[in-house]
Amino acid sequence: MNIQNKLNFSRRIRRTPFTTSVEKHGVTGFSVVNHTLLPKSFQNSIEDDYLHLQKHAQIWDVGCQRQVEIKGKDALKLIELMTPRSISKLQPGKCLYIPLTDENGGIINDPILIKISADHFYLSVADSDVLLWARGLAIGFGLNVRIREPDVWPLAVQGPKAADVLAKVFGERIYSIKKFNFDYFSLDGSSQLIAKTGYSRIGGFEIYLSRPELGSSLWETILEAGRSENIRPGSPNIIDRVEAGLLSFGNEMTVENTPLECNMDKFLDINKEADYIGKKVLQRQIRYGIKRRIRGVIYNGPKLPTISRPLQVFDIDKRTIVGSLTSGAFSPHFKRNIGVGMIKYGYWDNNKKILVNIADQEFREGLIKDLPLIQ
Amino acid sequence: MNIQNKLNFSRRIRRTPFTTSVEKHGVTGFSVVNHTLLPKSFQNSIEDDYLHLQKHAQIWDVGCQRQVEIKGKDALKLIELMTPRSISKLQPGKCLYIPLTDENGGIINDPILIKISADHFYLSVADSDVLLWARGLAIGFGLNVRIREPDVWPLAVQGPKAADVLAKVFGERIYSIKKFNFDYFSLDGSSQLIAKTGYSRIGGFEIYLSRPELGSSLWETILEAGRSENIRPGSPNIIDRVEAGLLSFGNEMTVENTPLECNMDKFLDINKEADYIGKKVLQRQIRYGIKRRIRGVIYNGPKLPTISRPLQVFDIDKRTIVGSLTSGAFSPHFKRNIGVGMIKYGYWDNNKKILVNIADQEFREGLIKDLPLIQ
Repeated sequence: MNIQNKLNFSRRIRRTPFTTSVEKHGVTGFSVVNHTLLPKSFQNSIEDDYLHLQKHAQIWDVGCQRQVEIKGKDALKLIELMTPRSISKLQPGKCLYIPLTDENGGIINDPILIKISADHFYLSVADSDVLLWARGLAIGFGLNVRIREPDVWPLAVQGPKAADVLAKVFGERIYSIKKFNFDYFSLDGSSQLIAKTGYSRIGGFEIYLSRPELGSSLWETILEAGRSENIRPGSPNIIDRVEAGLLSFGNEMTVENTPLECNMDKFLDINKEADYIGKKVLQRQIRYGIKRRIRGVIYNGPKLPTISRPLQVFDIDKRTIVGSLTSGAFSPHFKRNIGVGMIKYGYWDNNKKILVNIADQEFREGLIKDLPLIQ
Repeated sequence: MNIQNKLNFSRRIRRTPFTTSVEKHGVTGFSVVNHTLLPKSFQNSIEDDYLHLQKHAQIWDVGCQRQVEIKGKDALKLIELMTPRSISKLQPGKCLYIPLTDENGGIINDPILIKISADHFYLSVADSDVLLWARGLAIGFGLNVRIREPDVWPLAVQGPKAADVLAKVFGERIYSIKKFNFDYFSLDGSSQLIAKTGYSRIGGFEIYLSRPELGSSLWETILEAGRSENIRPGSPNIIDRVEAGLLSFGNEMTVENTPLECNMDKFLDINKEADYIGKKVLQRQIRYGIKRRIRGVIYNGPKLPTISRPLQVFDIDKRTIVGSLTSGAFSPHFKRNIGVGMIKYGYWDNNKKILVNIADQEFREGLIKDLPLIQ
């Protein structure tokens, strides 16, 4: 076997408090997010991991979801400035998905905002240095905030049995956390923030571990507690994510795309009272409409490998490139290949027939689909 | 063979215009820098690549050195604000190594600044999103600049025969470029910026390819032209880099370190007239002195593998941790293991004896050394 894509380790690609545990438990591949290792595969196939995730519980090292902590008198003002979503009514104890936009309305990142108190927030970020963006803005605008990357590392427990597992470790109170809420639980004499969030269709919890030295023991404690729930190590699963229409910053969308192109219009407040970066462009885009948007595709033919490079989408006459699939895999649920990506105006209607260009001169017929593919 | 560190490919980890070529020429491993693939190894050993680099010419895909283009009336003002190095006298056609600092004097990045004209610059950056930092500052301060990541991808040709190879492709004028200068050369009807810079001890050239569709043909043209110079694909070489004292952002230094701790005092202008971010902290640090600085180490015993995680350095009595080695390898030149890293005040004198903790309870005796280890 000629491995062409070994990842070279160095200090620059940071380990998490859980990396030693995932190595011990047979990780086989990584990605790199926020200069940090993200385990992507274990010894099972992606399909097997997918089936397991639908039924049981999994533990994921998502320490790469780095936190940007914003604290101080002007914290709310700075965050309002960074996003087209209104956060003025958000209460402490709540989480909110907020795209961050630049002056062109392009997406800088799509973090989860965690409101700890009136003037204290975390942004749990996807793969870009929001820390530098926020600090640059704060210095330039002369805002009264302290911004840093705290020593906090999320560990996810996902799947239908996630609550049952964590109840054994942190107590029954786990059951009372509502979706997109968080609460505090004790661990070895420390208080740990646990949110009911996660990057899977069924969902679960994320433990924002602020005592990294407890990483290995927390991992082992959860694995041990979850024996009867058949828990095992896993990672964000590409099949599950595409079925659920969960987008990935850097894959489905980049700074070249606006939140409107990414189906975020339903929960944004483009015309919110507070000023924010990109407001004029997004207001104009609301008025004149968008030229492309993210859509699902279900397509025919034998099982294809996971998409690792975008596949072009053509109209049914093979004359026009109408978009591309940026993530995709074979779905055991649909028994078809599925994908998500940007599709041009005029071609994005539900059930519109298209062709996916899977290799040189090789095309597969498929249908455009509303997201999520599975509710 | 159980490969534990396969790198998962996706659109989020960008390919360069040369990735297809490096795959064709047998790349075996990558790192990820600026959300982009950096080839790190081919079929030869790192040692063999090192020996080849000292004698011949190598072609490196360093497209991951992304450019931050800053253009406009306030471009110079913004860059002055970002660095403790004075750039007021820099002429167009020149390159300059400039650390960028935050309000604590911590290093945000250590790019090469390329002055294209009075109000037009590139920053060729190491691994952090300087694009977001610069844009955040520009918006906050209301500066009149346009900042973007241009579609420009550096390709390095390094080693003693680099000029001979490039003279055959771009003409004899290559020989007249002085170190840290650049000029323009024609390629397929386009004009390409070529700088006499690079991340090796002997040095060479970097072609800032602005026509990515020419990537594969440029790669093949250079390889073909360099046959008699014994050219071959390579990558920044850890042995060469450590011998040369070339630092790596994210490895030897992070935002926790100031430029003074990184031996940059000789060329900085801490008290420069223009205001810059971090000025007060660095002025104080100049006055009161630093508590640690980057030093070389040469140490004994059998050949060790390349350092992929920091090794602690102890005083000779094994009582105090006095620093750590963040990069290192076995040097064929010294026939010893060598490394670089931060060493505490009181322990950094040249030829000071120390112990390197290479594994649990295993120590190797060595000496602190001035950098570069080889001039």
